Amino acid sequence: MNIRVGIVGYGNLGRGVEAALRQNPDLELVGIFTRRAPEAVKTYDQHVKVLHVDMVREFVNDIDVMILCGGSATDLPVQGPYFSSLFNTVDSYDTHAKIPDYYAAVNEPAVANGKTAAISIGWDPGLFSMNRMLAEAVLPQGEEYTFCGRGVSQGHSDAIRRIDGVRKAVQYTVPVETSLEKVRNGETPQLCTRDKHTRECFVVPEAGADQEKISHTIKTMPNYFDQYETSVTFITDEEFTKNHDRMPHGGFVIRSGQTGKAATQKQIIEFSLKLESNPEFTASVLVAYARAVYRLNSEGQIGAKTVFDIPLAYLSGRTGEELRREML
Amino acid sequence: MNIRVGIVGYGNLGRGVEAALRQNPDLELVGIFTRRAPEAVKTYDQHVKVLHVDMVREFVNDIDVMILCGGSATDLPVQGPYFSSLFNTVDSYDTHAKIPDYYAAVNEPAVANGKTAAISIGWDPGLFSMNRMLAEAVLPQGEEYTFCGRGVSQGHSDAIRRIDGVRKAVQYTVPVETSLEKVRNGETPQLCTRDKHTRECFVVPEAGADQEKISHTIKTMPNYFDQYETSVTFITDEEFTKNHDRMPHGGFVIRSGQTGKAATQKQIIEFSLKLESNPEFTASVLVAYARAVYRLNSEGQIGAKTVFDIPLAYLSGRTGEELRREML
Repeated sequence: MNIRVGIVGYGNLGRGVEAALRQNPDLELVGIFTRRAPEAVKTYDQHVKVLHVDMVREFVNDIDVMILCGGSATDLPVQGPYFSSLFNTVDSYDTHAKIPDYYAAVNEPAVANGKTAAISIGWDPGLFSMNRMLAEAVLPQGEEYTFCGRGVSQGHSDAIRRIDGVRKAVQYTVPVETSLEKVRNGETPQLCTRDKHTRECFVVPEAGADQEKISHTIKTMPNYFDQYETSVTFITDEEFTKNHDRMPHGGFVIRSGQTGKAATQKQIIEFSLKLESNPEFTASVLVAYARAVYRLNSEGQIGAKTVFDIPLAYLSGRTGEELRREML
Repeated sequence: MNIRVGIVGYGNLGRGVEAALRQNPDLELVGIFTRRAPEAVKTYDQHVKVLHVDMVREFVNDIDVMILCGGSATDLPVQGPYFSSLFNTVDSYDTHAKIPDYYAAVNEPAVANGKTAAISIGWDPGLFSMNRMLAEAVLPQGEEYTFCGRGVSQGHSDAIRRIDGVRKAVQYTVPVETSLEKVRNGETPQLCTRDKHTRECFVVPEAGADQEKISHTIKTMPNYFDQYETSVTFITDEEFTKNHDRMPHGGFVIRSGQTGKAATQKQIIEFSLKLESNPEFTASVLVAYARAVYRLNSEGQIGAKTVFDIPLAYLSGRTGEELRREML
């Protein structure tokens, strides 16, 4: 029997989940729930049911896991607690500083209603967190480094777009290769902000805009850019569409530790991602955790869970026996 | 209260465990058990108790977890089932093809005696297996590549040492950089044996040995070397001691997958290790899992477990709350 899945929210992430579900034959998409007029939503598969989110209560017996694809700023703080009182859920809540509050807000209704909710799933928080934690547990004496990119930062791109005279803009966060190499060589350097990342900005200006001024405004913008080596390149609309209309991202989590009698042997653990589509990858992680959440709930493991709490075997469609035979 | 740990076997791995325990203040070494005469064993810390392995039954109430540091060929098939009937255990059983049998052989006595046994812990099997499994679950459409090295292969080094005229020898397995790059670029190439690794051999010959003949014997040795690009370098005893007397290792697990509507977006997940000391790193992983095994057993989760079955949180000395606040 397939695991029956619903999607709440149909932006880039929701579309990614729809696509990811097609690669997982044991999961079945029951419907997409949206705040928009359902008939205005164009799904990849035109046979998929699209419903207004107000209809969701009618599906409590038809959906095993609801994947919440809203944003962390305003959607999930409301949707997480609400949906986890009705369904098993998976979400990608990623406001690191507020995770403890969010955990509590989701855990209570989930426990009260016998549901299981996997929160803060994706790659950071998510796969990166797992690797940070695992590497620290294995190499307690050491330093941890997280590098972001090369990838699009939505926040920084937005900040540029708010500048007068900017029509379109994208900002790539790029790890500093020489710093990465130092870390990989086990040098455990002290890295300040500008040692870790540079910022590359590509801007389509309005006709007649003062490019000098835009460039200066970007490079001196407090916190966003002033502490970084920043480059600004002005491009045409055509070039923007051709080369900068995607959402690549990625990054590196590296732990550089020391072991042995005198703790002199260098040991490096590195985990990295190189993603052509950030939302589609996050969606793929959410879908694997939908499988896990269903199984946990079937076994009576209820409440809010994070990547730290869920055994990896639950993510796989394979049996424990198969995993030991073929993957160990 | 500290978790009380014992070590069975005091070779490179056992020594690594002794050293790793010193980096984990919540774990306490109770004693080392050996088949040798205890007084002949020189430990890092001279205050550590060394006992004959026949004494082990007297410690069933004093040791929470026994870390088994024997080899997979002959030690663990006997020790795993025996010790898991008396103690919670962790081992590094690494004969991939026989893991299902080993699992069964350890699981039965562990369950019968209410013990928890983490088997096949280390990096391959172990951390590499976790990453293979996780990456496949997240990116079901894709290809997985495991590269070994740069590191010492004991089996290949032994094979060279058995050749007439060879006094000392070490063999490094080296990943082929151009193949690694293809995989990282998402090209999903079909790689045959010689595309993935080369073999570098460093040999100290006996005085007057026929170097030409040794070199030919190595390069044509069936299975071990004949399918690989192999280099043989003759060196002096001094150089061997200076540069080749360590046990570095490492490797790469890379999954190259595709996501999205038409599965055209390339997504790369890479996990890699660069280890100056293979046994010390494996020992560090065993020690983290000793913590996990103790906790699982305290919660009544008994029987044989692998890296797929154990939530990551159990490996860390931090509380769930701390992990969510600081590591997620």
